[in-house]
Amino acid sequence: MAYKNSLNKDLKEVNKLLRQNISTEKSIADLYTYIFNKNGKQLRARLSLISSSRDKRQGKKRFKLAAIIELLHNATLIHDDVVDESPTRRGVKSVNNIWTNAHGVLIGDYIYSKAFVLMVELGSEKIAEELSSASNEISMGELIQLDAIGNTSITLSRLEDISYFKTGRLFEASARCGALLCNSRKKYTNNISNCAKNLGIVFQIKDDLLDYLGNEVELGKPAFQDIKEGKVTYPFYFAYKNANSNEKKILDTMLGNKKVSHAKVSNIINKLNGIKETENLALKYINKCRVSACKLDNGIQQEMLKLLDTSINRIK
Amino acid sequence: MAYKNSLNKDLKEVNKLLRQNISTEKSIADLYTYIFNKNGKQLRARLSLISSSRDKRQGKKRFKLAAIIELLHNATLIHDDVVDESPTRRGVKSVNNIWTNAHGVLIGDYIYSKAFVLMVELGSEKIAEELSSASNEISMGELIQLDAIGNTSITLSRLEDISYFKTGRLFEASARCGALLCNSRKKYTNNISNCAKNLGIVFQIKDDLLDYLGNEVELGKPAFQDIKEGKVTYPFYFAYKNANSNEKKILDTMLGNKKVSHAKVSNIINKLNGIKETENLALKYINKCRVSACKLDNGIQQEMLKLLDTSINRIK
Repeated sequence: MAYKNSLNKDLKEVNKLLRQNISTEKSIADLYTYIFNKNGKQLRARLSLISSSRDKRQGKKRFKLAAIIELLHNATLIHDDVVDESPTRRGVKSVNNIWTNAHGVLIGDYIYSKAFVLMVELGSEKIAEELSSASNEISMGELIQLDAIGNTSITLSRLEDISYFKTGRLFEASARCGALLCNSRKKYTNNISNCAKNLGIVFQIKDDLLDYLGNEVELGKPAFQDIKEGKVTYPFYFAYKNANSNEKKILDTMLGNKKVSHAKVSNIINKLNGIKETENLALKYINKCRVSACKLDNGIQQEMLKLLDTSINRIK
Repeated sequence: MAYKNSLNKDLKEVNKLLRQNISTEKSIADLYTYIFNKNGKQLRARLSLISSSRDKRQGKKRFKLAAIIELLHNATLIHDDVVDESPTRRGVKSVNNIWTNAHGVLIGDYIYSKAFVLMVELGSEKIAEELSSASNEISMGELIQLDAIGNTSITLSRLEDISYFKTGRLFEASARCGALLCNSRKKYTNNISNCAKNLGIVFQIKDDLLDYLGNEVELGKPAFQDIKEGKVTYPFYFAYKNANSNEKKILDTMLGNKKVSHAKVSNIINKLNGIKETENLALKYINKCRVSACKLDNGIQQEMLKLLDTSINRIK
């Protein structure tokens, strides 16, 4: 309880930092303020704060690191919304919807480079190395996914790669950088990074599941987007694998069809065990996450397990 | 002559570096190879090589720095093409034209973050500081320009700010980082940075002029794009300033009109001294550039003046 309060207090400091030194250019300030007006779950910031909580003497550096990670994450979200042409994000209109794609691209670049400016100020080469390589791998994951659109013969291991690069990688880097900030031992650094990496993959699998469960109001964004965009994610992958040739034909017509019936998609994906098998896959990563968590000291272990619970039970 | 040969030899090393360690992911390698298949003028890489040529003991680090700068520059070009919906770049189709906007956004991010990965490897905090802040200001310049679309009451000093942020800033950073790499004295560092900054602004003014001169074949990209996109650049700014109320109305109908007649635009902009006054403005920056160049040692001074000549006399 005390720990949670302390984490929330830390997050407040991070959010203060995120809202500091906003550009004096009105158009940039407007965009920036809009983006950071509504906090997301801030899981990556939390991960870095938990991981660096072993050495609170790092004080403001801990907050700065978490703010840098939030900046990087938000830059990728804004670009993703341009890439996916998403009209909403966190229950409100996306940047590309209120403004334009051009604004989305450029404010994404602005926030991204701002993260690097702060990273240099932080002054840790190891952290800069980890975060720049994570950023590179995130865009790699997104490009691989883009290339896989409409590809019904994609393998499970390829989908797992995408989940790692797209999501697991920054979760991992957040925890690793928190540990690096405290000059932690390799054992701690690797355990918490591994735990966070698998947590990230669980988070992504849950994301893929939520898209197929289709509760748009709770999600704060449109549902059944993946199938409409032609993205093969786990529920579709497993359903397709289990489909007979007739069902495969039906699934083929659904993939990339912007006007597909939500009810029909839900029906066939469920019938072919797409949801069930995705849940089983999630269990594999939940277990991996737990195994790594158990190797951590009690306080940090509890916090990581709480984040895992939040990720599993979330409805948005 | 010997110097020029040596610069071209250095550039070859830079281009080798740019083509090294290409992703094993085919889709990424295809995009990346396409982008770096055709070299541009590589002025920024040249600037950093010239500036760092005082201390050739830096060897491979000089090439790496120039490669990092080329990566940053190309990332911004690719994003610009998405922002401007440009169909061509350097005489060939743009990434967003052959592939999609989504590919443009993501490969831009990939190249951008690759630059930061290499920057960390380079291991100079001062260089990382300069390049991350330059990147941030480039996107700032692009955002200010985007916000100014259709704004016929924009001031000259605001247009000069945009030219500095969009173009002068990275020219300046390229020279400054070259000097920083050699641990140069402040005097040299500031002189060459200033010289490069003004060279960059000359380059941008010339770019704005070329767009209005309209030779698409030589340009390798469509002409009269600025006026069609509603961008007020120098030729339009000066013409508008000199226009009477009737001519202002005509210019108003031309700004942002994708189907405007090239001949009519050319005619009115010339008649109202838009080209002439832009050329005068260029002279101001050419002089500033020359003044700073004169403070440099003979060899480096000659190289900077050659780049200035190239920038002034270029037809694309």
